[in-house]
Amino acid sequence: MTTTNIRDEYNLVRKLSETICEPLETEDYVPQPVPFVSPPKWHLAHSTWFFETFILKAFQENYEVFDPAYNFLFNSYYNNVGDRTLRTDRGNVTRPTIKNVYAYRQHVDTRMNELLANPPGDELLQLLRLGLQHEQQHQELMITDIKYILGHNPLFPVYQKQHNLVDDVNSENGFAALQEGVYEVGYAGEGFCFDNELGRHKTYIQNFEISKSLVTNAEYLEFMEAGGYQDFNLWLDAGWSWVNENQINAPLYWYKIDGDWHYYTLAGLQKVNPDAILCHVSFFEAAAFAQWKGMRLPTEFEWEVASGHFSWGQRWEWTNSAYLPYPGFSKASGAVGEYNGKFMINQMVLRGASVATSPNHSRNSYRNFFHTHERWQYTGIRLVK
Amino acid sequence: MTTTNIRDEYNLVRKLSETICEPLETEDYVPQPVPFVSPPKWHLAHSTWFFETFILKAFQENYEVFDPAYNFLFNSYYNNVGDRTLRTDRGNVTRPTIKNVYAYRQHVDTRMNELLANPPGDELLQLLRLGLQHEQQHQELMITDIKYILGHNPLFPVYQKQHNLVDDVNSENGFAALQEGVYEVGYAGEGFCFDNELGRHKTYIQNFEISKSLVTNAEYLEFMEAGGYQDFNLWLDAGWSWVNENQINAPLYWYKIDGDWHYYTLAGLQKVNPDAILCHVSFFEAAAFAQWKGMRLPTEFEWEVASGHFSWGQRWEWTNSAYLPYPGFSKASGAVGEYNGKFMINQMVLRGASVATSPNHSRNSYRNFFHTHERWQYTGIRLVK
Amino acid sequence: MTTTNIRDEYNLVRKLSETICEPLETEDYVPQPVPFVSPPKWHLAHSTWFFETFILKAFQENYEVFDPAYNFLFNSYYNNVGDRTLRTDRGNVTRPTIKNVYAYRQHVDTRMNELLANPPGDELLQLLRLGLQHEQQHQELMITDIKYILGHNPLFPVYQKQHNLVDDVNSENGFAALQEGVYEVGYAGEGFCFDNELGRHKTYIQNFEISKSLVTNAEYLEFMEAGGYQDFNLWLDAGWSWVNENQINAPLYWYKIDGDWHYYTLAGLQKVNPDAILCHVSFFEAAAFAQWKGMRLPTEFEWEVASGHFSWGQRWEWTNSAYLPYPGFSKASGAVGEYNGKFMINQMVLRGASVATSPNHSRNSYRNFFHTHERWQYTGIRLVK
Amino acid sequence: MTTTNIRDEYNLVRKLSETICEPLETEDYVPQPVPFVSPPKWHLAHSTWFFETFILKAFQENYEVFDPAYNFLFNSYYNNVGDRTLRTDRGNVTRPTIKNVYAYRQHVDTRMNELLANPPGDELLQLLRLGLQHEQQHQELMITDIKYILGHNPLFPVYQKQHNLVDDVNSENGFAALQEGVYEVGYAGEGFCFDNELGRHKTYIQNFEISKSLVTNAEYLEFMEAGGYQDFNLWLDAGWSWVNENQINAPLYWYKIDGDWHYYTLAGLQKVNPDAILCHVSFFEAAAFAQWKGMRLPTEFEWEVASGHFSWGQRWEWTNSAYLPYPGFSKASGAVGEYNGKFMINQMVLRGASVATSPNHSRNSYRNFFHTHERWQYTGIRLVK
Repeated sequence: MTTTNIRDEYNLVRKLSETICEPLETEDYVPQPVPFVSPPKWHLAHSTWFFETFILKAFQENYEVFDPAYNFLFNSYYNNVGDRTLRTDRGNVTRPTIKNVYAYRQHVDTRMNELLANPPGDELLQLLRLGLQHEQQHQELMITDIKYILGHNPLFPVYQKQHNLVDDVNSENGFAALQEGVYEVGYAGEGFCFDNELGRHKTYIQNFEISKSLVTNAEYLEFMEAGGYQDFNLWLDAGWSWVNENQINAPLYWYKIDGDWHYYTLAGLQKVNPDAILCHVSFFEAAAFAQWKGMRLPTEFEWEVASGHFSWGQRWEWTNSAYLPYPGFSKASGAVGEYNGKFMINQMVLRGASVATSPNHSRNSYRNFFHTHERWQYTGIRLVK
Repeated sequence: MTTTNIRDEYNLVRKLSETICEPLETEDYVPQPVPFVSPPKWHLAHSTWFFETFILKAFQENYEVFDPAYNFLFNSYYNNVGDRTLRTDRGNVTRPTIKNVYAYRQHVDTRMNELLANPPGDELLQLLRLGLQHEQQHQELMITDIKYILGHNPLFPVYQKQHNLVDDVNSENGFAALQEGVYEVGYAGEGFCFDNELGRHKTYIQNFEISKSLVTNAEYLEFMEAGGYQDFNLWLDAGWSWVNENQINAPLYWYKIDGDWHYYTLAGLQKVNPDAILCHVSFFEAAAFAQWKGMRLPTEFEWEVASGHFSWGQRWEWTNSAYLPYPGFSKASGAVGEYNGKFMINQMVLRGASVATSPNHSRNSYRNFFHTHERWQYTGIRLVK
Repeated sequence: MTTTNIRDEYNLVRKLSETICEPLETEDYVPQPVPFVSPPKWHLAHSTWFFETFILKAFQENYEVFDPAYNFLFNSYYNNVGDRTLRTDRGNVTRPTIKNVYAYRQHVDTRMNELLANPPGDELLQLLRLGLQHEQQHQELMITDIKYILGHNPLFPVYQKQHNLVDDVNSENGFAALQEGVYEVGYAGEGFCFDNELGRHKTYIQNFEISKSLVTNAEYLEFMEAGGYQDFNLWLDAGWSWVNENQINAPLYWYKIDGDWHYYTLAGLQKVNPDAILCHVSFFEAAAFAQWKGMRLPTEFEWEVASGHFSWGQRWEWTNSAYLPYPGFSKASGAVGEYNGKFMINQMVLRGASVATSPNHSRNSYRNFFHTHERWQYTGIRLVK
Repeated sequence: MTTTNIRDEYNLVRKLSETICEPLETEDYVPQPVPFVSPPKWHLAHSTWFFETFILKAFQENYEVFDPAYNFLFNSYYNNVGDRTLRTDRGNVTRPTIKNVYAYRQHVDTRMNELLANPPGDELLQLLRLGLQHEQQHQELMITDIKYILGHNPLFPVYQKQHNLVDDVNSENGFAALQEGVYEVGYAGEGFCFDNELGRHKTYIQNFEISKSLVTNAEYLEFMEAGGYQDFNLWLDAGWSWVNENQINAPLYWYKIDGDWHYYTLAGLQKVNPDAILCHVSFFEAAAFAQWKGMRLPTEFEWEVASGHFSWGQRWEWTNSAYLPYPGFSKASGAVGEYNGKFMINQMVLRGASVATSPNHSRNSYRNFFHTHERWQYTGIRLVK
């Protein structure tokens, strides 16, 4: 990959973040309705802060920070980089305005382009790739956070009339059978990968059959109509508490209106399409559905070794694997080491990618992870028997 | 008062709300950092909803509501007018945009001016006056809520460089002595007053002396330096819990920077002016300070009968009277009856007015009320011995 | 009153506390099911600690405390006397055992009897009276706390089969009318009274008529059947939140079993007696019921000046007066000064006495006080029109 | 195993529960200081309820339940067996008394001995074994819950002066090295095991070295003195929140008194013995300590395959494996199926046994599990490099 390429790639990725925000009104950039959803403005600034902090301050001679207060405002969770705004307070910070944030992006992009005029060394290149992957991760969060903000507005505003992030159907059917034995898992290629995908190692897997299709709305409606949300025998104990404390009776964004199930999409509120792939379910719901079907979720390694047997990328797929380090995992020193390792507890792995995932961002060794009750991502279910 | 006058008055009051918001950025209109602070956008819409709901829908023939969803969005607490947005969710409603809200105001103002082209009947006039007083109350809240939003931003943005809502000093000194006896309290005039000020009645008051000046920053600093926030003997039991649970050690908006006390004002952060009248203290702080001085707060009736002996209007003044109904109080039927009566419990009365109070809004029988821990209003202390 | 008398009185009061606990099993002495209910063991020890701390340590030469750890364990809220067990942790302290606590009582009683062998001086006598009144207050709390512990046990255990603390009916009917004018209120006698009843002072009262009878179960059932708990217009705003958050639909201890209302009494579960005086309602319920009746609760002064016109003592009666200091109130210095004054905020006054009140403890100037949602005391309703 | 043996075994196990409670005062049986600690009385009754519900009611002809209310009172979490006392309310149920509970045990034991007079069939035998294992699990909880109740009492009462549940030292040193390859894990014997240990299956393990000794107090003190609790880089993100929210700075039961670290043991408060094996740490602390040492915790499979190379049984040992089902796991139908499967989420596996574990209860395939913040069990740390 030549120098030109990496600068072009930088500009391409950076541009996409702004394209995602184009349909927004200024007001939409501001709120943080729940702690796990961040304001779009914050995403735009934080991904910029990442380049400023880890690259420009380290590699650009005489770099002057755009505004010294921004380190406090737009640090997400890097304890090594100083104090920061409480995560729950991001929605109350009205200044800098969105206009200021775009100026901040402009400033950093200009300096980054200057820096990338010359071929970057290895260390810089590596950080650069991390920064771009990082921004891509925030691009997916921006889409799901925007959906959360608009989807909880009583007016159900349309994000984009012709939006593609809506429905998707299965192209394959049936099950793929895999044989018991020793398999290798983990990233093996030459390109970028996260530290949590390393190192490639052997694992022993028993015979299993994995579905080539994802669970559809029609199948899930059957579960709902069979009283799935009322039968404690189907649920993990913590899942049953979650259902009852939050009075859950349908996937996120589903609303029963005049007797019909509707769901909110970025193209607006519409009737649930029974053929479409089910979306916005928690791990708890995925596990209860599998139990009801008399099947189970795949482990992340089953998923990885079988991934060549089906097409994927339409939904993040819950696995029954806890997010834990691979053998030989060790975290990088300094702030960059806080990227993945410290989250390896009490979360479950998701494999695949979603319609909201940025192009070329995922791969079959990619380990996404969320808490068992979270469902504002594009999450779906694949079964194993 | 002629018809022309009431329409002019309507337009004048309505205009002031928009003037208050002029210095804001669009982002500043959105957030609700704590449940008791409402977004400026919400104030602008809710005061408009009041006229639409209680006047246009009732008195304007064939009135078409601007948007049927707004009743749900901008009802504050009127159970008689249907369901409403949870009070804690006001900051997450990004649509309608602020532009929409100004269009809503425009729409209602146009129809109101049409309606007021003819002399209003008594019932309409009464509701109109209530609506204007209501909007004036929200104007004061807009100012204090804007101060809260900007004053909790790490950048301490300036609202208006030359703003008058800053400091104020006492013009009088000493104490006024009043004689024991039967006095009359409650509203007695011809103009508008709230139901909670009626009916005028006799009360028996003992001898007392009331200060002609309000407590200053210098006096309060003395209390702080004497360990006032650390001495439980000075505090009400509930106040002592409040101090400890919230780690209170100064009035709201006070920050110690490099050894000096500063406070946030709408003109920006500045050094505490010792001569200025103390502001932004809770009832708990007021009561502890009075205890430390060996004095006490006035009752609301002491304040009222003495109010001719000092000038007032610079700060809302905490009294030691609970907010309870006057003899013979009865609430109006329907939604308008929800205005005052249902809040008459567990709050304390404040008398006076503040620099944020709209012109001609207060009077010496006016009963303002807040909870004992609240202090984001312009609240101060007057002592009695 | 002679020395013999005060010693006899001391022994009489002390004995009653133990008589109250006689029907208990050891286990019943331990728990604290909610923060406002204290374990009977704690009451027995705390009232003893009061005599040890404020009298024996001060007046008995060479007094050795029974156990130095008890000051920490059995101090209730006196900040001046050192650290203490968190109020919410009282139910977890299994040691000292109840046997130890009775030994503690024995120890203190022996030394107190020695001390009282000689005529006490004025200061001692005053503290002694306070200690006895204090123990009597805890005797009433012991009864209501025992009722709470047993009444929330799914087995509804009987405290005493023949218990007198059950039902009571009205002996009078109709209303007494009082004339507008200046009245005197506050304690005026020679005997003991609390600091919150002093000093006697003039107050102006308007014409009013006060019911000679308390509200009965039958009357309250009418309110319930008329949908009283569902009609927000009847409730204070904070009361309406309380009803909804706690799903309140009947007085405390009422259970609907097979279509009939029952209530738990210290003689066991029984059918609600319609003629009996209503009991265990919160201030919120009292206020809503009055609103429904088109009447109101008396102020504490109305109650006091009218108290000669009806018999009282069957139930503590909610007034619409906030618990605030009388003119000229000042708290004693030191720990004893923490007795009343620091609680004078956000509570309402109750007047009268209940079947659980110790003999000769109350009087018509007595000011009891609880928070607006509390109802585990024997609380009832008297109306004014 | 003959019929006589199983009856003897039954009586032996049942007796041990009562022996454990012998040193208690009646009061100690009652409280539930935190939701995860149950009252000893409840353990005694609940383990009895298990035999009554799953065996006597099913296998004993004409069995009459001791008290129909007990099903509600002493069901722990079996949704299939009806409603139950809220888990957080166990400490408030003073009746039945402890005397009643012992009568309940007596009643059930008599009928069980009658039932076991004849050789039990297979189904009964299996349930019986489950019931005994279940009671043994509660025996360990009884010990740790008693320790919690007494260890949080400001008097630090002694449970047993000569108690053996105190200190233990390592008998071995150094590391055992194991070779990469396919291993079998899971229960393989003939005797009783839990469903979560089945079925035995192959797993691939990389080279590793595992310590033959457990971490000692001295080693952990080094970590503490090196600032381990203050260095966020050592902690998982959730662990760092836990440390800060709970102000954790030492293992549970450690108290610094006059500059020296003490800990509470069942023989009373004593100075920390540096040579003793560290105990009462959470998973978070175990993980942070391992990080500080530059090592890691074993996985549960590493532990299992290496367990022949060291002696174990002194402390439950945290592994870095999430508690998840083995391949082919399926839960039994009915209430017994609620035993293990529904807890397989967001908990970590512990291997080994502790000094509080009942004799013959554990084995090297045994999977214990707790949440990452829990540390009132006898939990310790073994490292891997």
